[in-house]
Amino acid sequence: MILNKIYLDNIIKTALLEDINYCDVTTDYLIPDSQMGRARFVSKAEGIVCGVGAAIRVFELLDDIEYEILKNDGDSVIKGDVILTLSGHTRALLKGERTALNLIQHMSGIATAANKYSEIIKGTRATIADTRKTLPGLRPLQKYAVMTGGAKNHRYNLSDAAMLKDNHIDAAGGITNAITLLRKKLGHMTKIEVETRNLDELREALAAGADIIMLDNMSPEVMKEAVEITAGRAVLEASGGITGDTLRAVAESGVDIISIGALTHSVTAFDISMYIE
Amino acid sequence: MILNKIYLDNIIKTALLEDINYCDVTTDYLIPDSQMGRARFVSKAEGIVCGVGAAIRVFELLDDIEYEILKNDGDSVIKGDVILTLSGHTRALLKGERTALNLIQHMSGIATAANKYSEIIKGTRATIADTRKTLPGLRPLQKYAVMTGGAKNHRYNLSDAAMLKDNHIDAAGGITNAITLLRKKLGHMTKIEVETRNLDELREALAAGADIIMLDNMSPEVMKEAVEITAGRAVLEASGGITGDTLRAVAESGVDIISIGALTHSVTAFDISMYIE
Amino acid sequence: MILNKIYLDNIIKTALLEDINYCDVTTDYLIPDSQMGRARFVSKAEGIVCGVGAAIRVFELLDDIEYEILKNDGDSVIKGDVILTLSGHTRALLKGERTALNLIQHMSGIATAANKYSEIIKGTRATIADTRKTLPGLRPLQKYAVMTGGAKNHRYNLSDAAMLKDNHIDAAGGITNAITLLRKKLGHMTKIEVETRNLDELREALAAGADIIMLDNMSPEVMKEAVEITAGRAVLEASGGITGDTLRAVAESGVDIISIGALTHSVTAFDISMYIE
Amino acid sequence: MILNKIYLDNIIKTALLEDINYCDVTTDYLIPDSQMGRARFVSKAEGIVCGVGAAIRVFELLDDIEYEILKNDGDSVIKGDVILTLSGHTRALLKGERTALNLIQHMSGIATAANKYSEIIKGTRATIADTRKTLPGLRPLQKYAVMTGGAKNHRYNLSDAAMLKDNHIDAAGGITNAITLLRKKLGHMTKIEVETRNLDELREALAAGADIIMLDNMSPEVMKEAVEITAGRAVLEASGGITGDTLRAVAESGVDIISIGALTHSVTAFDISMYIE
Amino acid sequence: MILNKIYLDNIIKTALLEDINYCDVTTDYLIPDSQMGRARFVSKAEGIVCGVGAAIRVFELLDDIEYEILKNDGDSVIKGDVILTLSGHTRALLKGERTALNLIQHMSGIATAANKYSEIIKGTRATIADTRKTLPGLRPLQKYAVMTGGAKNHRYNLSDAAMLKDNHIDAAGGITNAITLLRKKLGHMTKIEVETRNLDELREALAAGADIIMLDNMSPEVMKEAVEITAGRAVLEASGGITGDTLRAVAESGVDIISIGALTHSVTAFDISMYIE
Amino acid sequence: MILNKIYLDNIIKTALLEDINYCDVTTDYLIPDSQMGRARFVSKAEGIVCGVGAAIRVFELLDDIEYEILKNDGDSVIKGDVILTLSGHTRALLKGERTALNLIQHMSGIATAANKYSEIIKGTRATIADTRKTLPGLRPLQKYAVMTGGAKNHRYNLSDAAMLKDNHIDAAGGITNAITLLRKKLGHMTKIEVETRNLDELREALAAGADIIMLDNMSPEVMKEAVEITAGRAVLEASGGITGDTLRAVAESGVDIISIGALTHSVTAFDISMYIE
Repeated sequence: MILNKIYLDNIIKTALLEDINYCDVTTDYLIPDSQMGRARFVSKAEGIVCGVGAAIRVFELLDDIEYEILKNDGDSVIKGDVILTLSGHTRALLKGERTALNLIQHMSGIATAANKYSEIIKGTRATIADTRKTLPGLRPLQKYAVMTGGAKNHRYNLSDAAMLKDNHIDAAGGITNAITLLRKKLGHMTKIEVETRNLDELREALAAGADIIMLDNMSPEVMKEAVEITAGRAVLEASGGITGDTLRAVAESGVDIISIGALTHSVTAFDISMYIE
Repeated sequence: MILNKIYLDNIIKTALLEDINYCDVTTDYLIPDSQMGRARFVSKAEGIVCGVGAAIRVFELLDDIEYEILKNDGDSVIKGDVILTLSGHTRALLKGERTALNLIQHMSGIATAANKYSEIIKGTRATIADTRKTLPGLRPLQKYAVMTGGAKNHRYNLSDAAMLKDNHIDAAGGITNAITLLRKKLGHMTKIEVETRNLDELREALAAGADIIMLDNMSPEVMKEAVEITAGRAVLEASGGITGDTLRAVAESGVDIISIGALTHSVTAFDISMYIE
Repeated sequence: MILNKIYLDNIIKTALLEDINYCDVTTDYLIPDSQMGRARFVSKAEGIVCGVGAAIRVFELLDDIEYEILKNDGDSVIKGDVILTLSGHTRALLKGERTALNLIQHMSGIATAANKYSEIIKGTRATIADTRKTLPGLRPLQKYAVMTGGAKNHRYNLSDAAMLKDNHIDAAGGITNAITLLRKKLGHMTKIEVETRNLDELREALAAGADIIMLDNMSPEVMKEAVEITAGRAVLEASGGITGDTLRAVAESGVDIISIGALTHSVTAFDISMYIE
Repeated sequence: MILNKIYLDNIIKTALLEDINYCDVTTDYLIPDSQMGRARFVSKAEGIVCGVGAAIRVFELLDDIEYEILKNDGDSVIKGDVILTLSGHTRALLKGERTALNLIQHMSGIATAANKYSEIIKGTRATIADTRKTLPGLRPLQKYAVMTGGAKNHRYNLSDAAMLKDNHIDAAGGITNAITLLRKKLGHMTKIEVETRNLDELREALAAGADIIMLDNMSPEVMKEAVEITAGRAVLEASGGITGDTLRAVAESGVDIISIGALTHSVTAFDISMYIE
Repeated sequence: MILNKIYLDNIIKTALLEDINYCDVTTDYLIPDSQMGRARFVSKAEGIVCGVGAAIRVFELLDDIEYEILKNDGDSVIKGDVILTLSGHTRALLKGERTALNLIQHMSGIATAANKYSEIIKGTRATIADTRKTLPGLRPLQKYAVMTGGAKNHRYNLSDAAMLKDNHIDAAGGITNAITLLRKKLGHMTKIEVETRNLDELREALAAGADIIMLDNMSPEVMKEAVEITAGRAVLEASGGITGDTLRAVAESGVDIISIGALTHSVTAFDISMYIE
Repeated sequence: MILNKIYLDNIIKTALLEDINYCDVTTDYLIPDSQMGRARFVSKAEGIVCGVGAAIRVFELLDDIEYEILKNDGDSVIKGDVILTLSGHTRALLKGERTALNLIQHMSGIATAANKYSEIIKGTRATIADTRKTLPGLRPLQKYAVMTGGAKNHRYNLSDAAMLKDNHIDAAGGITNAITLLRKKLGHMTKIEVETRNLDELREALAAGADIIMLDNMSPEVMKEAVEITAGRAVLEASGGITGDTLRAVAESGVDIISIGALTHSVTAFDISMYIE
C-alpha cells in the first residue's frame, strides 16, 4: 500500500471510536458471536475507485478477516462492478460497514473528480493539482486519492515548499527581496512559488528567479500572455475559482498546472454499497 | 461554546500538525517575529455561518490573539459580511489561516445545506436529519453544523440507539423477535428503529412496538399510505436517495423525519476569505 | 467480543505502560527469554465472571499467546473454577499478570454486583440500571460489565439522552417549557428524562410528555403513589441512596428502573488468582 | 499541586470525552451561553478529602473559572463541610460536574480508607502501604490518594524495584541465587523484595541480603516469630488477605509494613455533592 | 516562535511524563507548595544557543511562570553568559529543570556544531545541510536547531522530495528511466535528487535532468571534476563520511551542498547549567 | 524482548510518521508493489550492538517481514559482521530503512560507550551508571542500551527514588532534617541519595542515614578520603565532569558508582549500514 499504514491506522481508529463507541447495541445483542458472513462492495456509479486498502484495514483492525480485491485503487468501475469481497464474523462486518463505506466513498469521490478534471484538459500541456484546502485530519487520504485519480499533489504543508503571498512580499519589501532572502535560508530541496495578480508581478517574479509562479484569478487571455512572457523560465500555475466550465479554456492558455481547491474541499461521495450475506 | 472543547482541540491540533509540520518556511523566514496584524473573515456567498468558535480556537492554540465576533454560529450571512476579526502576531495569523478556513468553510457548508433543505420542507410536519455517513474524525463538527443549520441529529453512534437492518432481523428470526429480544437487553434510554422496505414490514414493525420506522426507498405515494397506517403510533423516517428535487414531495407525504446522507458525505465548502492587513 | 477492540486496546496499553514502564527488572533479569509457561485464572469466590477477553488481550498485546476459555463473560463461577488457561513465554505471563488481574477482578466485581442486585428484585417489574458515576477512563468497561451481570445501561454520556435537573428546569422556566424547548431541538432518537422530587413535579412532567421520570429520593410509599398516577404513561426510575437493604421495597413499589451509582463508583474487586507453572 | 499536571490533564481529558462526547444536549439547549453560576462541593460524610485540585482542573479545562479552596487535599471533613466553591459559566459547571465528582469521590474514598487503616494500627511500628492492584489508567491518582490519606506507596511499577515471586526464584535456582544474580544487574537505587511463605524461606532471604521480605499469608503468631528472627536486618512486609478485623493483630506482631490491595482495588466512593446556584 | 507549538508541546509533555511520572518525591515532600524561586540558565561553554523557547515552554506547561530572555535562539554565547532567567514556584522550577536542560543542551549542541561546520567552509560556495539521520521523535527540534546554527535543512521526510538510490534506479531500469517516470507522477513542487557514485552516473543524471545530484563518497579531486562537468546545470551535494578534517577540502571542490549526518545523529550536548535561588 | 513493546511501538510509530509522512514518493512511484527483497544490517565498526529488536519492529509495523537475527543485543561485533537479515517487500524495506538505522545506530552507540567505560574501570569495585540526562522521549531506549552495554541504570524518574540537592536541603533546614522528613513520607521501596560537595556534608549525610551519597565534583584524592570515612555505611557515587581520561583514577578511589551523563546526552552513533538486494 502506498499510504503510510501508521497514519491510516490512526485515522481509522479514530473513526471506529466515534462510530462504535463501546459496543454496537443492535449487532452485539442480535447477531450470534460465531456467525460468519460474506460482504461485497459494489459500485453504484461510474468512476475511479480509491480506498480499497483503507476499507479492508477497517475490518482488519476489528477482527480476523479474509478478502479478495477485484478492483484496485485507480481502476475504473461502472455501476454493478464488485470492488471487493470480504468474509469473516458477521459482527465485524456490520460494525465496520459504515466506517469502511465512509472512507471508500470519500476517497473514490476525490479520485473520480481528479480523473474527470484531467480528462477535460487532455491534450493540453497542463495537469491538475490539489491544494491545502483539505478537510482537517484527512489530508493524507485526500492527497493520496488525488494522486490515484491521476492528478498531482501540490505542496503537502507549510514546511516543504515556500509560497509567497501579499503579506510575505510586503513584509520583505517586494518580490525580488523576498526571493533573495528566502534563497539564503531555504534548503536546496525546497522550491519557491510566488502568487501574482498581474503581468508586472509575473515579470518581477521571473526576474527574481521564482521556481513556480501562480497566476491568480487571471483570464485565459491574460494567462496566454503570461505563458508567452515566461517562455519556459518558470512553471506557471493557474489558480482561483476555476470550474469545470472554464477549465478547458484555462488549460489551452498554455499553463503547466491548474490547481483546484474543490477537489478536496467540496467532495461528492462516490456511491458504493456493501451487501452482507 | 456548544462543541466539547477537548474534542475540538484534538481535531485542530491534528490539523495544525498536518498543515504546518515543524515550521512555515515562508512565514517564519520573511515575517518579523514581532509584526502584528489584523485579519477579517469575510463571507463570499449567502448562507448560514458555522465554525466561528472553531476558527478562533485555531489561532488561540497557536498564540495569544484578540478577536471580535460579528456573526455567530447559526447567523445568516450574505456576500461581503464580515464574520470575525482577529488581531495578533502576523505569523500566527498566517500559520493558522488555512486550517481555520478549512474548518469554517466546511462547517458553514453543512449548516447552509441543512438550512436550505429545511426551507424546502417548511410548512410540512417533517424535519431534516443527518446520518452516520460522516467523514472520518469529523463527526462531532459535522453533527454540530447540521444542528446549527436547523436540522436534527440522528443517532450519533452504534451504541446510543438501535437500528435493525436485514441482517439483524434475519439473525433474530423476524422483526417481532428482534424487537422483543432487544427490549430485554436495551436500557430504558435507548430507542429502536426498524428499516422497512414495504408496508407489510411496516405493519409488523408497528405491531412489535418499534419506536421509529424507516421507510427505505419508498415512493411518496407509498409513504403516504404508510403515514395513514401508522396513525401516529411510531415516528416515520424517510430515507434513501432523497434529493432537493424529490424532497418536498416526500415531506408532503406526512412523514416525520427525512434523513439525508449528503448533508455530511457530500459537502460543498461555503466560500469565506480571510484578509490580513 | 462485544467491547470495541480499539477502545479496549487503548485502555490496556495505558495500563501496561503505567505498570511496566520500560522493563520488568525482576522478570527480565531472572527469567530466560525462551522459557515457556502455562497460567490458570482461578476463581476464589462465587459470582459472575467478566473481562475474560480483556485479560486475554493484555497478553496478546505483549506477545504471541495461546489460550483456552473455560468460562465466558456472564458465566457463574464458584470458588476453584478455572476461568481461563494461557500458554506462552513466561516473561509475558509475568509481565501481564497484574494488569490482567486488575481488569478481570474489577469487571467481575461489577458483573457480580449487578447480578446480585438483579436477584434481589426478581419477580418485580423493575430492572437495575447503572449511572454516569463511573471511574474516569473506565466507562466502556464498566458499562459492559453491568450489562454482562444482567443489569442495564443508562445513558452513556451527555449527548445521547437528555436529563433535566433543577438548573435546566429553572433556566427554561419550568418543566413544561423545558420539555417543549428540548423537543424542538432534539433528534428523534433521543429520549428526555426529568428529575422530580415530589408528586406535583411528577404530574407536570407527565403532562409535558417526559419519556422517563426520575423519582429522586422518594420513599417506597410515595413511589407507589407515583406508579399509580403515572399509569404507564412514562417510564419511572427510582434513584438516590438505594442500597441492598431498601432495594426490594423500592422494586415492589412498581417502578420500572432502579439506578444504582454504587454499581460503578464503589466496586469490590472479585477475587481471582493467576497461577503460573 | 503534587500530581504531575500533564498526567492529570490526560486522565481528565479522557474522562470529559467519554462523559460529554460532542455536546451536552440538555445543557447546551436549555442554559443560555452567557448565564453565570456558582457551585459548592459539600461533604456528605466524615473522612479525608482528596482530589480538590483534580476537580478544579476539570472546570479549567472546559472554561475560565474562579474558585476558592476551603479544604485542601488531606484535610479532615465532616458532613456539611464546604470543600470548594467555583464560579463561572453555568454550562461549564454542569458539563464538568459529573467528571469532577467522579474524581474527587474516588480519590477521597481512597484517602479516607488509607487514613482509617492507619488509625487502626496507631501506636505500632507498622505503616500501611498500597499495592499494584490499581485500576487501569488511574494509578497516579490512586497512589497519590493513598499518600494523601497518610499511608505509603509501595513500588510504582515493575521497573523501579524488584519483587521476587515463586517463578523468579524457581527460574534462578533458589532465593540466594536469585538475589545474587539480581544485585549484579540492578542499579544502586533499586531495592529487592522477596516473597516468603514460611520461616525457612525468610531465613534464606535474610541470609541472601534481601532489602525487604514479604510475609505472605502468615498468621500474626508466625509473623511475630519472623520479626524476632529478622531482628532489624530487613524490612518486613505483611501481605495477603488482611482486613480491618485482623489488621491490628498483624500490626502488633512487629512488622514494618502492611500492604493492602483493597485500598485501591475495592474503593468505596466518598459521598460529596455539588450544588449549583 | 518558529517551531510549531503543537509539535513542541507534544514532545515536552512526553518528556515530562517520562521524567516526573506521578510526582517528584523529593521536591513535593520537602519544598513548600508556596515557596517562590528564581532560576538562571547559564552557559558553561562557547557556542550558539538554541532551545530557549523550548526550555521556557517546559515550565509554562507545568505552572505559571515569568521569564526574561537574555539570549535568543541563534545568539553566540560564551562561558558565564546568562541565557534566561525564570521566576515562579520553586517546585515547578525543580520539576522542570532536567527536561528543560535536556532540551536546550541538545538543541544548542546541534546549533553549535552547525555553526562550527559553517565557519570551516566560509568563503566557499558551499553550505552545510543536515540529513534524515535524526533521533526518533526529535526531528522537528533537530532540524530547527540546524537552521538556527546557520546550516540548512535537507528534505524533511520521504514525501516532500524524491531521492533516487540504487534500488530505485535498478527497479526503474536506469537513471534516465527513473527520472522520466518520476517526473510524470511528482507534483511541480517536488525536486528530484539522484545519488551517484562516479562521473558516468553523474553525466547520466545531468542528461536526465536531475535537480540535485549527490556525489557519494567521492574524493575532493573527483568532486572538482564533477563541478566542471556539471557547469551549473544541477545542484551538487557532497555526502558520505565527511568530517571536520576533510570538510574544507570538499567545500573547495566547488560543490553547493555538503550534508553531514553527524549534525543530528552524533550530537554533543552543549553545557548549560540552571541555578535556582 | 526486554523493552516494553507498547512503549517501543509508540516511539517507532512517531518516528515513522515523521520520516514517511503520507507516502514515500520515490519508493512508491518506482518500486513495484509486489517486488520482494532482502536486506542485511552490517556493522561498520567495533562495539556492542543494541536495538536489533527495535530495528525489526520498525519493519513489522509496516508490513509482514521475515528475519534472522545473527547478533543479539549485547553481542560484540566487528567491522563486517552481519547483525540481521530481513526479507519482505522491497517497498517496506526501503521505507523502514532510515528509521531502523536511526534506532539501532543510536542504541548501539550508547551500548558501545557503556561497555567502553566499563572496560576502563575493570578490576575496581566501581560500576558505571547513567543519569536522567537523556533525550526527550527516548529515555526507555537509552536506559535499556546502557544496561545492554553492561553499565547500570540510575533512578528512572523523579518518583522512584529521592535525590536531595541544595534547594531541597535548604528548604528542609539541613541534610539531617531533610532525610528525617523524607523517611516519614517515602515508601519502603524508595532509596534516598544526598548530593554532597565536601566531606563535612558527607559526614552529615552518613549520620543521617542516607542510602547513597553523591560526591559531586570531588578530586580522586578527596573521594579516597570519603571512601575511608564512609567505611561501607552507604553507597558512594562519584559524579560531575568525569571523562574517559579521569575515569580510572576516580574508580580507583574506591567509590561504588560513577555516573556519566554523556552516556545518554552526547551519543556518537555506531556505524551500521543496511544493504538491500
